[in-house]
Amino acid sequence: MSDSQQFHIGLIGLGVMGRNLALNMEEKGFPVAVWNRRSSSLNEFLQENQGKQFGGHPELSGFVAMLERPRRILLMIKAGDPVDQVIEQLLPLLEPGDIIMDGGNSWFEDTQRREARLRELGLHYVGVGISGGEEGARHGPSMMPGGSADSYAEVKSVFEAITAQTEAGPCVTHVGPDGAGHFVKMVHNGIEYADMQLLAEAYDLMARGLGLQEQDIAEVFDQWNQGPMESFLVELSAQVMKVMDHETGKPLVSLVMDKAGQKGTGRWTVQAALEQGVAVPGISAAVDARVLSSMKQQRVAAADLLKGPGTSAGVDHKAMLADLHGAIYASRITAYAQGMALIRSASDRYQWSVDLAETARIWKGGCIIRARLLDPIRAAFSNDPEPANLMIDSEMSHQLQGLQGAWRRVTGFALTAGIPLPVMGACLNYFDSYRTERLPQNLIQAQRDAFGAHTYERTDHPEWGFVHSEWLDS
Amino acid sequence: MSDSQQFHIGLIGLGVMGRNLALNMEEKGFPVAVWNRRSSSLNEFLQENQGKQFGGHPELSGFVAMLERPRRILLMIKAGDPVDQVIEQLLPLLEPGDIIMDGGNSWFEDTQRREARLRELGLHYVGVGISGGEEGARHGPSMMPGGSADSYAEVKSVFEAITAQTEAGPCVTHVGPDGAGHFVKMVHNGIEYADMQLLAEAYDLMARGLGLQEQDIAEVFDQWNQGPMESFLVELSAQVMKVMDHETGKPLVSLVMDKAGQKGTGRWTVQAALEQGVAVPGISAAVDARVLSSMKQQRVAAADLLKGPGTSAGVDHKAMLADLHGAIYASRITAYAQGMALIRSASDRYQWSVDLAETARIWKGGCIIRARLLDPIRAAFSNDPEPANLMIDSEMSHQLQGLQGAWRRVTGFALTAGIPLPVMGACLNYFDSYRTERLPQNLIQAQRDAFGAHTYERTDHPEWGFVHSEWLDS
Repeated sequence: MSDSQQFHIGLIGLGVMGRNLALNMEEKGFPVAVWNRRSSSLNEFLQENQGKQFGGHPELSGFVAMLERPRRILLMIKAGDPVDQVIEQLLPLLEPGDIIMDGGNSWFEDTQRREARLRELGLHYVGVGISGGEEGARHGPSMMPGGSADSYAEVKSVFEAITAQTEAGPCVTHVGPDGAGHFVKMVHNGIEYADMQLLAEAYDLMARGLGLQEQDIAEVFDQWNQGPMESFLVELSAQVMKVMDHETGKPLVSLVMDKAGQKGTGRWTVQAALEQGVAVPGISAAVDARVLSSMKQQRVAAADLLKGPGTSAGVDHKAMLADLHGAIYASRITAYAQGMALIRSASDRYQWSVDLAETARIWKGGCIIRARLLDPIRAAFSNDPEPANLMIDSEMSHQLQGLQGAWRRVTGFALTAGIPLPVMGACLNYFDSYRTERLPQNLIQAQRDAFGAHTYERTDHPEWGFVHSEWLDS
Repeated sequence: MSDSQQFHIGLIGLGVMGRNLALNMEEKGFPVAVWNRRSSSLNEFLQENQGKQFGGHPELSGFVAMLERPRRILLMIKAGDPVDQVIEQLLPLLEPGDIIMDGGNSWFEDTQRREARLRELGLHYVGVGISGGEEGARHGPSMMPGGSADSYAEVKSVFEAITAQTEAGPCVTHVGPDGAGHFVKMVHNGIEYADMQLLAEAYDLMARGLGLQEQDIAEVFDQWNQGPMESFLVELSAQVMKVMDHETGKPLVSLVMDKAGQKGTGRWTVQAALEQGVAVPGISAAVDARVLSSMKQQRVAAADLLKGPGTSAGVDHKAMLADLHGAIYASRITAYAQGMALIRSASDRYQWSVDLAETARIWKGGCIIRARLLDPIRAAFSNDPEPANLMIDSEMSHQLQGLQGAWRRVTGFALTAGIPLPVMGACLNYFDSYRTERLPQNLIQAQRDAFGAHTYERTDHPEWGFVHSEWLDS
């Protein structure tokens, strides 16, 4: 099928993401060898793409023999056991300096484990977060590679060529060692969960709260997309709202079952945050909102039994829509703040030295959460690479304070009307908790000391350290 | 020190919980042999309690030899590796039919693993959740044993004697096999997190929102404790509020640092919920609230940069306090609903057959979340052992609908005033999501289909199953 050692990169796994990445790389001038467990897909792909710089071999050893050295092999296969299995098959065929890359959504601790093992064998292992869906893979994703600096030098040219291009360069950077890339991609998805849920909440407020139809809502999203709220997901929301179902003549979205699925990266983000003791309540609430949405049967039954307050009295639509814009924007800032705080915590813990300004830069194009907001976020982390929290950046804090009135009015309107806004509410509570010097958890700590002798610190005598009192005998 | 085989039960680990349980068992007429890794504590305990039916031996083998058969050995040691280590030391000394019990807060999957291993050896392993703190251990805890029915028959008499007694019997039952006891105890603690945070939020609203002092707040809690809100934690809140610091003449609680610690069972509850796909947003928010409270330095710095809306205009104190009672009560119901839904999910998954009415009964006394509310909860699960959710029980739904006005007013007042109520807000959103027939997640699912071909179901054609549309080409 092809000469030996002429292919710049090898790709394993010809699912839709793998195929599109292969086409993307070849189009940018990189000869690509491909391999797939089922050779029928392999043959089909090669036949469909005759005349292009693709090669393939039904045997894995033949595929490996086609690659330049050091060999660059990108796995685009299902996360979990399949990755370990393919690695085991590849190991006897590789030589020191070769690079295996995993482009799936792998749990970062698996990537850490695999990287450590391959490093001992003199091989490089790169966990590559890839965002952008099918379209991104084909025409320019955002890529988040984690691994050794040496291995990044070997794959930089192809990654920089195939990723989305922005004014600030290609949407890829060396995120950090071992699991850093997959961790950052996981948090990207966590923020995506929160942002998608926020837009769904905006939709609900406009539809049930203000009585707007899908066409009107599409217009609002279109308007939002002309300003600071511009983002892929806002644009997509407008597009989705406009699609009509030919059979019924109704907006297609109105016929979509209100059950949101999930593949696990949102849940992983919350699990990682729990393990690291970082609060990401907006992301947690977004995961829970998908769970509650999936309980459709229970909700239908409960709707008859648990009546809400009914629709609220007249509200100024124009003012409420302006407020809604501010409330969603403020919530979005805090969702990014939570995600960035989690990345920073992991980076400190694992000594990854993740550059948060670079992270914002490579999310600016190609990926699902690309948004104009990432410009001021990038500026914030450029000004201060390690702020305690994004919210205290001067521009962000200025925005949040200016928007809080709208944020509070929208949340207040919704809860009066019985419309759930779990992520917006969690984000506002995050903001209000974070900016509160004195929270009421002194009561909790006093109770813990009273029933479990867990001790407490005194505000007036910090030098005493942890003390215990007899609360029940006084 | 004592004759052989005369002791009904053996206890390992003479920390404060172990000591108090030993004293409790002996007081109820059960001779107790004790053992401790450090023999100084062992000797001290035996000396302090001369004349009582205690025995001990510095060697573990000697301790085991002192026990009746089947041997009943209760471990009151730190969860984790120490439990495995002591089990390994005990195994060569035991015979088929003997029973090892773990009274610590062990992760339920560890308990499942240990139970399976010991079962193969012909031994019984019982994971016993114990709640009530030091006082409970000494005078009557709530106990949640999980293990074989055979082993429960052997320990029932001592457990029924030492646990708290209510009109409905002793606060212990055979929860279910293997990890059921530790799972139920874990969820108990998750509910405890939510309930403690709710009372802290009430405190904050009264103190910062209404300007009440600790003495006034104690009075409110005392009043609450006379009615349906009666519970250990409300009573304790009142007591804690009344304790004065002799040095400063100020309420001691006002001098307690507002950083709430956590030992992990709240976090575990959220992790278990994430793994099982159950939404427990109120418990999640309570865990996050403790995390945010612990970030004291960041909050102090942020308070200068992120100004809130300032205190709100005049509010009718009496009406707001009445509303607050309703809001906390409604939130508490939903916190129990979330916890019970999680237990039911695990019970179904692991085939534990946990009786939720019995669970409510054994929580009625001895434990930290004991509350009058557990009577109607028990009644609800007696009427229908497997409701989809506690909230749709006729009494609970009646309560929630009656209280929702107060709930919404309090939440609205707080967010206008900039006072965070993360758990109350999460609980209200849980209620509003659960009772909503049509949620806006159709937008999310449409977006997922648009960028990732994740497919969706149609409300008007459920028979089509999962379909995909070309959203972007229309």
